[in-house]
Amino acid sequence: MEAVVNCAAYSQGRRVANIGINDVNQALKQPDKFVWIGLHEPGEEVLKEVQQEFELHDLAIEDAHRAHQRPKFEAYGDILFIVLRTAQRNYLQHRVDFGHLLGKGPGFALYAVMDSIVDQYFPVIDALEEELENLEEKIFAEQSRRETTIEIYELKRELMEVKRAVSPLIEICNRLMRFDLKVIPEDTRPYFRDIYDHVIRINEMVDNARELLSTALDANFSLISISQNEVSKRFAGWAAIVGVPTMIAGIYGMNFKFMPELNWSYGYPVILALTLGSCVLLYLLFKRSGWL
Amino acid sequence: MEAVVNCAAYSQGRRVANIGINDVNQALKQPDKFVWIGLHEPGEEVLKEVQQEFELHDLAIEDAHRAHQRPKFEAYGDILFIVLRTAQRNYLQHRVDFGHLLGKGPGFALYAVMDSIVDQYFPVIDALEEELENLEEKIFAEQSRRETTIEIYELKRELMEVKRAVSPLIEICNRLMRFDLKVIPEDTRPYFRDIYDHVIRINEMVDNARELLSTALDANFSLISISQNEVSKRFAGWAAIVGVPTMIAGIYGMNFKFMPELNWSYGYPVILALTLGSCVLLYLLFKRSGWL
Amino acid sequence: MEAVVNCAAYSQGRRVANIGINDVNQALKQPDKFVWIGLHEPGEEVLKEVQQEFELHDLAIEDAHRAHQRPKFEAYGDILFIVLRTAQRNYLQHRVDFGHLLGKGPGFALYAVMDSIVDQYFPVIDALEEELENLEEKIFAEQSRRETTIEIYELKRELMEVKRAVSPLIEICNRLMRFDLKVIPEDTRPYFRDIYDHVIRINEMVDNARELLSTALDANFSLISISQNEVSKRFAGWAAIVGVPTMIAGIYGMNFKFMPELNWSYGYPVILALTLGSCVLLYLLFKRSGWL
Amino acid sequence: MEAVVNCAAYSQGRRVANIGINDVNQALKQPDKFVWIGLHEPGEEVLKEVQQEFELHDLAIEDAHRAHQRPKFEAYGDILFIVLRTAQRNYLQHRVDFGHLLGKGPGFALYAVMDSIVDQYFPVIDALEEELENLEEKIFAEQSRRETTIEIYELKRELMEVKRAVSPLIEICNRLMRFDLKVIPEDTRPYFRDIYDHVIRINEMVDNARELLSTALDANFSLISISQNEVSKRFAGWAAIVGVPTMIAGIYGMNFKFMPELNWSYGYPVILALTLGSCVLLYLLFKRSGWL
Amino acid sequence: MEAVVNCAAYSQGRRVANIGINDVNQALKQPDKFVWIGLHEPGEEVLKEVQQEFELHDLAIEDAHRAHQRPKFEAYGDILFIVLRTAQRNYLQHRVDFGHLLGKGPGFALYAVMDSIVDQYFPVIDALEEELENLEEKIFAEQSRRETTIEIYELKRELMEVKRAVSPLIEICNRLMRFDLKVIPEDTRPYFRDIYDHVIRINEMVDNARELLSTALDANFSLISISQNEVSKRFAGWAAIVGVPTMIAGIYGMNFKFMPELNWSYGYPVILALTLGSCVLLYLLFKRSGWL
Repeated sequence: MEAVVNCAAYSQGRRVANIGINDVNQALKQPDKFVWIGLHEPGEEVLKEVQQEFELHDLAIEDAHRAHQRPKFEAYGDILFIVLRTAQRNYLQHRVDFGHLLGKGPGFALYAVMDSIVDQYFPVIDALEEELENLEEKIFAEQSRRETTIEIYELKRELMEVKRAVSPLIEICNRLMRFDLKVIPEDTRPYFRDIYDHVIRINEMVDNARELLSTALDANFSLISISQNEVSKRFAGWAAIVGVPTMIAGIYGMNFKFMPELNWSYGYPVILALTLGSCVLLYLLFKRSGWL
Repeated sequence: MEAVVNCAAYSQGRRVANIGINDVNQALKQPDKFVWIGLHEPGEEVLKEVQQEFELHDLAIEDAHRAHQRPKFEAYGDILFIVLRTAQRNYLQHRVDFGHLLGKGPGFALYAVMDSIVDQYFPVIDALEEELENLEEKIFAEQSRRETTIEIYELKRELMEVKRAVSPLIEICNRLMRFDLKVIPEDTRPYFRDIYDHVIRINEMVDNARELLSTALDANFSLISISQNEVSKRFAGWAAIVGVPTMIAGIYGMNFKFMPELNWSYGYPVILALTLGSCVLLYLLFKRSGWL
Repeated sequence: MEAVVNCAAYSQGRRVANIGINDVNQALKQPDKFVWIGLHEPGEEVLKEVQQEFELHDLAIEDAHRAHQRPKFEAYGDILFIVLRTAQRNYLQHRVDFGHLLGKGPGFALYAVMDSIVDQYFPVIDALEEELENLEEKIFAEQSRRETTIEIYELKRELMEVKRAVSPLIEICNRLMRFDLKVIPEDTRPYFRDIYDHVIRINEMVDNARELLSTALDANFSLISISQNEVSKRFAGWAAIVGVPTMIAGIYGMNFKFMPELNWSYGYPVILALTLGSCVLLYLLFKRSGWL
Repeated sequence: MEAVVNCAAYSQGRRVANIGINDVNQALKQPDKFVWIGLHEPGEEVLKEVQQEFELHDLAIEDAHRAHQRPKFEAYGDILFIVLRTAQRNYLQHRVDFGHLLGKGPGFALYAVMDSIVDQYFPVIDALEEELENLEEKIFAEQSRRETTIEIYELKRELMEVKRAVSPLIEICNRLMRFDLKVIPEDTRPYFRDIYDHVIRINEMVDNARELLSTALDANFSLISISQNEVSKRFAGWAAIVGVPTMIAGIYGMNFKFMPELNWSYGYPVILALTLGSCVLLYLLFKRSGWL
Repeated sequence: MEAVVNCAAYSQGRRVANIGINDVNQALKQPDKFVWIGLHEPGEEVLKEVQQEFELHDLAIEDAHRAHQRPKFEAYGDILFIVLRTAQRNYLQHRVDFGHLLGKGPGFALYAVMDSIVDQYFPVIDALEEELENLEEKIFAEQSRRETTIEIYELKRELMEVKRAVSPLIEICNRLMRFDLKVIPEDTRPYFRDIYDHVIRINEMVDNARELLSTALDANFSLISISQNEVSKRFAGWAAIVGVPTMIAGIYGMNFKFMPELNWSYGYPVILALTLGSCVLLYLLFKRSGWL
């Protein structure tokens, strides 16, 4: 794939011409004309050329070069420099045709790009919310498993990743809506307010999921303890049911010379019945109090 | 049910006429007249017609179409676009007769609609608070059950749902109170401040319930641990009471040739009494120290 | 008790006359005169009369009627409408004589009422802090009991109740101090700042108590776990001391034909001594390592 | 100790005279003169006199009387009323000689007093941080003890005490730095900014310690659980090592007529060896899996 | 190492001369000239000299002397006093050559120093994040060890240390960007905004790591409990498998005269088989329910 994916001049709503990068500066000098350039992992040389043609600030180029991790808004005089991050989860290679939008001028083109990127976050968050619901089911199912806890942690990590990508957008939208920027005409403002509204919603969804997740971690923990409780109770119950016959048998296993019961004809069956009876009694007792 | 539930023009406090949607624009041109339209799940066509008649912004129609999840306030020039969410729990199909209110002008009509929607949240929150109190009783009752923890989590989820619906109303009310909006005359401001006051109260109630709920989750957890403690103690106590006779019986079950006790006439009853005595002693000891 | 507890006109620092409610409007028209009315659970009629005489806003009457739960400040033109909540715990029926204060004008009278209500919160919070200290003692005492956890939760509930009553006062004081209100003359401002200062302190005390309480809940939980630990250790220790003799006795209870020890004259006492010795050894071992 | 510790007039950098309280008002009327008064637990009378001489506000005297718990800043016209709290822990009775500072005027004298009080907090916080480090060592040492948890709680309490004393100072410094106060000349502002800087640092240190402490409480709790885990494992291991011989011995203690092993000459030693062997095997198994 | 590492005058982008400290004041009087001084642990004397030459404020010198712990920004008239902290972890003795930057004037020199210091934090935080990932692996591995909890705590401590060093930089950058400072010319502002952007990112990374760490502590705790659960279950299972044969053997060890089974020829093998069978059955049962 070439570094320069696209380079075209637009004027009064129509694409005028595909141009070379070194013709950009000239094209920009004509009123009502604007230029769209698409770059894909551009090398240092290409960036330098772009910088010269658009008269960009050194720091803007430096940031573009470093594949900046955090969304950013910067105004160098009349030039707006905006860094955005596309949603990474279940990313679909979808081609947005900005052609007709570009005709409405650079402000509207900026809107179109931002809107498309921000809207990509909705399916990502829907997927994360669905995962949260799956986790809830696992947590509330009987067995507490190590994997569930680990998955809770992983989901938390992903949510914070999304948060980090989305939260700076609030301020970027704010600046685009408020400041008197030459590039953003009055009538495109509602569009940026619309993006702002979407960004706020995404942020709320992420924060919501985070809070629910932390409650889920606590609930998970409570359920682990309850199941520990149940294990202890069940063990105690069966230990009693096994322990009592052992004790009784031990007593009649003593070697005293004078133990009248031992000589009774029905001593053995009576004791056996008694033992069995006490076991059944214990079983019923524990059953009733919920220990078994 | 038809898409257009209601469409009428009002003038100077009285309903002037039921009109068709395509007469709206004309009706609006007359001073002191305003129009009320009720739509029920309108299709694309109806929305398009409404848009043309009211000269609405594209984004407003788009939002209406998408059944927007989050309360929203937007001013497109002189037009206010407001999205609200009705309370969903124990929803009662109650018909509000706005007729006489509409007469006081569009600002007051807006107040009436918002007031009615906001007031629907109070019974919802009352129900949630009652559920919290039920949960408290379950938590503080003897048995710790899995269901209680799950119900705590579910309640948390519902509270956050309500929070999400109500919290954006604070800002919406703020804008209606503060901004110099042509549609909101000076003397209806106290009414919007009244709604604002209700919204603040609902928010406080939700936050309150959330904080209590999280403390309840912690308390629940403490009680589970205490009950685990009690299980362990009770088990330990009974294990001792069963274990000591087993040990004594084992000793007198040994096959040594010379064990004087075995030949005593009262060896058996004495040992039995001794064993029983030690069991009683242990029982009392554990009872006193609270283990049984 | 009658609905109208008190109704008097004041002028230049002295009570001029007890008047009927329907003379209020007239009395208010005279300069430098103001009127104090005390109502006790007033019915709809009385409220209506009061409204007419003072020319109050519909919403103010509605709020008064509904026994509003949340402190509130509202300015309807020149009229200030303020809702306050008295402290509920250990409430003492104390009669405040506002007579001499009323002479200084309505602004000062408002100060006197607010000051009296706010100061009632201090003993309430002192009582809650004392309860917290009692709880601490219970938590740090040896036995962990269900009741302690429940009391922690109840205290939390009460603290949040107080918080809800007090926190809106901060904004109310702020408005009384800042806004240019005709009814609050310049020289009474320091008095409202004084109330503000008290309210801030009450809020801080409540927040403090809440944070300590949540730490107390955590500490309580740690101590429960430690005591669970101790139970397990002590049980393990005693199980060993009982289990080892049982095992030894079992071995010498076997019925092999050729077991030389069984025929020794001193077999029994030697084994008994050995068994006892191992029990003592185990006891000392566990004692030293802190398990018993 | 007398109530009036110190009372002197200063002019142009030098102490002019020791004066009586009732000469204060006169002294203050001369330009460039200011008066320093030190009071120690003053009675109502002395305070009244001071009030008259300095023309102080009633509320200022009331606050001074009540030994106000919370740092406070209040401006009554030209008069600044400031309440500060000295650090209470390891309080050293140190005498600050303000003599030479007083010469630079009342603004600088205020700085000197505040600076001295604020700097007293540093050793207090250093001591608390040291205590936190001691606690960490105790927590991470092998044994989990009740006392450690209690000490964590006590430290939390102390930190919140300090926080309560220090945090209002931020706003007090802010006001002294920002507002156009006659008493604080332009060139003393950097000095108050310096105090502000110290106060911010103290606050940060306290917040830091609080957050670490809460993590320490959690870590403490994790370690308690791990040690509970170890107790359970060790108990299980030894129970197996004691339980298996008991079971084998039980089997050969049965009284069946036909048990060939019982009549073998080497039956006893073979079974003994087998039993011992299985114990050693179990021991090694548990050792390898970390249970013993 | 000498106290004065470097002392040179710059003019119009070139180093003019190495000068002595006592020539600084004179050099500064020439327009377009500025002076760079590097000090290494300077003594009181050197600082005094520097103060005189640069006409610095007393408090600036005091702060420099005390090796101030917290980043700080202070403007004394035209003089900016800035304290920064270099990153301490894996500190590399790297020499930054500011020579060519100094030529662009003091504002740019300040940028260069700050940028270099701030960029040193990135590798530190990368190292901490890597450590967090190592910890995650340890937490999610089978064995829960005391060391893991302790390491979590230590990492928390380090993160808070970094936070303390970095968070004040936000405000420092803010002031450098916003205020109309003579020393910071208009065209260097974007550079300070770039540092601001880096500082925000570092802060976000630290906050992120802190939140993940606290979730990791909770997850760690959940896993400890689950493993406690597993220990209990496994113990209960094996106790049953050992306890049942012991009980059966005990019964046939009783000494009753009339126990028909004892006289059967196949009594012993039948019972042995039965016992073994029940053990196998129990084993399979526990295996299926996940207790073994």
